Amino acid sequence: MITHKQKPFTANSGSIRRLAREIAEANVKHLILIHGGGSFGHPLAKQYAIKKGYKKDSQQALGFSKTHQAMVTLNKLVVDALIHYDIAAVAISPSSCIVTKSGRIDVFESEPIERLLQIGLVPVLYGDAILDLDLGFTVLSGDQLAVSLAIRFYAERLIMGVDVDGLYTADPKSNSSAKLIASCTLRELKNIQQQIEEAKSIDVTGGMFGKIRELAPAIEKGIIALIINAAEPKNVYKALRNDRIVGTFIMKERS
Amino acid sequence: MITHKQKPFTANSGSIRRLAREIAEANVKHLILIHGGGSFGHPLAKQYAIKKGYKKDSQQALGFSKTHQAMVTLNKLVVDALIHYDIAAVAISPSSCIVTKSGRIDVFESEPIERLLQIGLVPVLYGDAILDLDLGFTVLSGDQLAVSLAIRFYAERLIMGVDVDGLYTADPKSNSSAKLIASCTLRELKNIQQQIEEAKSIDVTGGMFGKIRELAPAIEKGIIALIINAAEPKNVYKALRNDRIVGTFIMKERS
Repeated sequence: MITHKQKPFTANSGSIRRLAREIAEANVKHLILIHGGGSFGHPLAKQYAIKKGYKKDSQQALGFSKTHQAMVTLNKLVVDALIHYDIAAVAISPSSCIVTKSGRIDVFESEPIERLLQIGLVPVLYGDAILDLDLGFTVLSGDQLAVSLAIRFYAERLIMGVDVDGLYTADPKSNSSAKLIASCTLRELKNIQQQIEEAKSIDVTGGMFGKIRELAPAIEKGIIALIINAAEPKNVYKALRNDRIVGTFIMKERS
Repeated sequence: MITHKQKPFTANSGSIRRLAREIAEANVKHLILIHGGGSFGHPLAKQYAIKKGYKKDSQQALGFSKTHQAMVTLNKLVVDALIHYDIAAVAISPSSCIVTKSGRIDVFESEPIERLLQIGLVPVLYGDAILDLDLGFTVLSGDQLAVSLAIRFYAERLIMGVDVDGLYTADPKSNSSAKLIASCTLRELKNIQQQIEEAKSIDVTGGMFGKIRELAPAIEKGIIALIINAAEPKNVYKALRNDRIVGTFIMKERS
């Protein structure tokens, strides 16, 4: 929701400001922020087929430049808003410190992030066009990055802000009988996966299950994942403050 | 010259475009670009005493954020101009992949830069506010960074664009009898240093000697350094093409 999805390269500055203010008000220690590409990174990544790797084509190489640069542009708007609310936010460019291998994080120099956290600054990362040992380059999703960071820095919680209230039994945008799943364990997630497989690989949850599956390695380590509707004012604030909130909690096992 | 030095946060877009066009026309393989802070990074770095390290002051921490963000802003203008001239330029954020120790580069994950060069893309770096193992944070100069990259990637040449024609026997901006030194060796540089020491540590060359001293470790490795006036149109083009040019060549020994 930090961009207008239907309008390429259009930031939703109202949303960005609101989220920055909520994050400032929540005043959490040891915070890492990650955002996606919205209508900045995605159209270019798609146009130049960045995810599929480098095809030794100079126009595609220029497309890699443009995709990364679009993400830098969006990230700048986000960090500017955070600094406006006195958050000591520091842009960390994923493609400057991470190299993937067939799309999975392989090299990751995280010392700058560790030092930022130690002195109380807030690293801000994003899904990015990235160098890849096998493919030349590819796309690193904000989701994969968030999980890697959560594990690396022993996060207590991983909060994922989306534009629905959480994980539903069906796609809430098209199916009015869809029910929100308030909490679930990794084992229960596997059951949902089975249902999806039986439905011939159609993600009945409207794509949310796919995002959550990426979180599994963090949940496996005992990190609690929380899916919330960040388009709803005050939700990010409540989630950061650990207040009661509508959403989906995902944990390794019920305690 | 990519900013107006007297006006904080004011880019010289004409100069940026001209330099980008010259670099595009020179069409060099295996190129790394580095720029300084001009009127973007320097006023903030100074205001918040970033170079002196972190004083456990939250306003100063915010100053670190602002200084880095100012550099991201300037770098974005540079990379946008390069992409405009079809150079597959990719911003590499020094503070995302480098950590210094008492101001000298200590941790440096250069795999992304290596991969960019392999597939023919052009990394663009800059002097930056940076995390430091001893000081918390500090400032990394574009000069130190350029030397480190030149050595790491076995550069043939290190071209330094400044706003005078090269190294002079005196400060050409205040002394009309100053003579340009067209070429010199490391040993001859040491003689100049001695003259400076005899002049009670006043850098008689108008600050240029100080910059060049930073280049010595690269020259020691056999890399030829070339100081040119980048404010003079066509000079960057000529230097990149290895054409005849007014400037100062510095080499380990005369061959």
